Amino acid sequence: MANMVYNFSAGPAMLPVEVMQQAQAEFRNFNDLSVSVMELSHRSSDFIAVAAAAEQDLRDLMQIPDNYKVLFLQGGGRGQFAAVAMNLLGKNAKADYIVTGQWSKSAVEEAEKLGTVRVLDGFGEVENGLRPLASSWDLDPTAAYVHYCPNETVDGIEYHFVPKTGSVPLVADMSSTILSRPIDVTQFGLIYAGAQKNIGPSGLAVVIVREDLLDQAFAHTPVIMDYAAMAKADSMVNTPPTYAWYLAGLVFKWLKRQGGLTAMGERNKAKADLLYNYVDASNFYGNNVHPDARSWMNIPFQLKDESLNSAFLKEAEAAGLVALQGHRLVGGMRASVYNAMPIEGVQALVDFMDKFAKQNA
Amino acid sequence: MANMVYNFSAGPAMLPVEVMQQAQAEFRNFNDLSVSVMELSHRSSDFIAVAAAAEQDLRDLMQIPDNYKVLFLQGGGRGQFAAVAMNLLGKNAKADYIVTGQWSKSAVEEAEKLGTVRVLDGFGEVENGLRPLASSWDLDPTAAYVHYCPNETVDGIEYHFVPKTGSVPLVADMSSTILSRPIDVTQFGLIYAGAQKNIGPSGLAVVIVREDLLDQAFAHTPVIMDYAAMAKADSMVNTPPTYAWYLAGLVFKWLKRQGGLTAMGERNKAKADLLYNYVDASNFYGNNVHPDARSWMNIPFQLKDESLNSAFLKEAEAAGLVALQGHRLVGGMRASVYNAMPIEGVQALVDFMDKFAKQNA
Repeated sequence: MANMVYNFSAGPAMLPVEVMQQAQAEFRNFNDLSVSVMELSHRSSDFIAVAAAAEQDLRDLMQIPDNYKVLFLQGGGRGQFAAVAMNLLGKNAKADYIVTGQWSKSAVEEAEKLGTVRVLDGFGEVENGLRPLASSWDLDPTAAYVHYCPNETVDGIEYHFVPKTGSVPLVADMSSTILSRPIDVTQFGLIYAGAQKNIGPSGLAVVIVREDLLDQAFAHTPVIMDYAAMAKADSMVNTPPTYAWYLAGLVFKWLKRQGGLTAMGERNKAKADLLYNYVDASNFYGNNVHPDARSWMNIPFQLKDESLNSAFLKEAEAAGLVALQGHRLVGGMRASVYNAMPIEGVQALVDFMDKFAKQNA
Repeated sequence: MANMVYNFSAGPAMLPVEVMQQAQAEFRNFNDLSVSVMELSHRSSDFIAVAAAAEQDLRDLMQIPDNYKVLFLQGGGRGQFAAVAMNLLGKNAKADYIVTGQWSKSAVEEAEKLGTVRVLDGFGEVENGLRPLASSWDLDPTAAYVHYCPNETVDGIEYHFVPKTGSVPLVADMSSTILSRPIDVTQFGLIYAGAQKNIGPSGLAVVIVREDLLDQAFAHTPVIMDYAAMAKADSMVNTPPTYAWYLAGLVFKWLKRQGGLTAMGERNKAKADLLYNYVDASNFYGNNVHPDARSWMNIPFQLKDESLNSAFLKEAEAAGLVALQGHRLVGGMRASVYNAMPIEGVQALVDFMDKFAKQNA
């Protein structure tokens, strides 16, 4: 294994090198207390300061208005598939779900256990054999909310606009795009994200929810999924995943040092452009996603000669480019290039791809 | 702050020093991969090996029979309060709950959202002003299960026997006692534990469930709480809390090196005896729990002159004895002495208590 490694894992994904260095250095001696941050009571003043700073830094980065609550929960994005429905379906118990792939489909499965879900096709008309994303739907004005997943990691499909849903609250599973560029939080009723792509390690989910949507949870909602109860208790109805919360806080501080979300958006666009431009110019590799719908975060590509897949992965790994295998449902290759991936990693990948293509042309 | 610190936190609690040393050393380079274990996909062969070894080591330590599934979940003990009810209440939707304190009460609150709960008093007749734990109850033979909490951390109350429930499955919240001594798993239908006391960091819950109790979950059970679905997917229906799982695995290996649960039980009894014997012999400190019901894990004690509480905590901290403040609901002092606390820590506490008593008598 090469000493310098670029890790293209789709999640759990690489974390910023500086964050990992700091975490390692203070692993057993946090705040000069001679104990680890993970050995502190969540009710201790030292940990409460960690938790509060993480929330404030996230609010600063995303410019989250005061009428939104920020929650740090367990259960990942899939836990939120259920929690969103339990908390927001309300009396009518019906919602519209825009489906564009694996994750939005899985969200439907959880919501269907709890109410009536209408599935809306997230794709538009075929153009040159490729399907762009739809931009309007026949929405139900009495639905409790409209749910969508702005970025589908498996197929590498991403909305580069925010769907218009009128007065119906828009709910977004931003697990794979949160913090990757500036967004206008006021366009959303609720945003949630599993942490293990752009926030921190797995085992943490962040929920940003407009206050007026609280207090309508089903009576049988487990308290650990009850947004109103969690908001009232500063996400500490029960013991939170303290170490993941701490690492998320380090990532937020790192993002501020990088120049915030405007700078990250520019960087992420440059990384994506670099790889897509190379693939599009190549006869050896391909990407079959409509240009308007291409993900900045998860970039799938295929070798036109699939018999070379194993050799590609093996040589890439030997060159320090790891976790490039595509999702088990679709095969091929996939480079996940979240915030923590520097452009140098993408350049190293393009250089390797070019060398491999020339050697195997 | 003293350089050598003994951390008596009730949870998140201290982890074994050797475990923390290893975790720090390989924090950014696991298995010589040049990445952190928390940056690996949960579907990678390296992480799957971590996960499988942790399960096997736990099975070895607790001698878990093959007809029990072992699950590694999110949501902590409080998440399991709901999950147990969702998965096990079944068609009759009724259960008996033995209540002895804060945690068993909170378990009732979650189960009452989902079915009919009968609350049974966990205490017996008063003896010399102290209440021992009850040993028999008027149980409902048609209840889906009987739930109890063998160790209540707030009051420091512990069952040193297993309640007899006949053919009705016994469910135990072992968050604060799991792995502290040998138990006979076959006496239980289901055992669960939040990790942050005897297993690892917060953000992980372990569930040990007899196979014949699966497949009766309510239809609205979130998939992340569905034991049968999680068992089928090796606890990876969704991305698990990989770093907490890895640390739990290191703790299990450490326990094996210590001599397993027989050795831990002897050690934990010796630790508890040391502190209780000192308190009982003292005129300065007291403990008001019936001798038959005293916890080995959480040892509350009171200064008879409560006006000295702040000075006690301040001087203890200066001596490197931290997190001794009692639970906010009951006050006083509490020393939590889970597996990771060496007897040297308890001896240091007793030495300090004795010195403080002499200085303030």
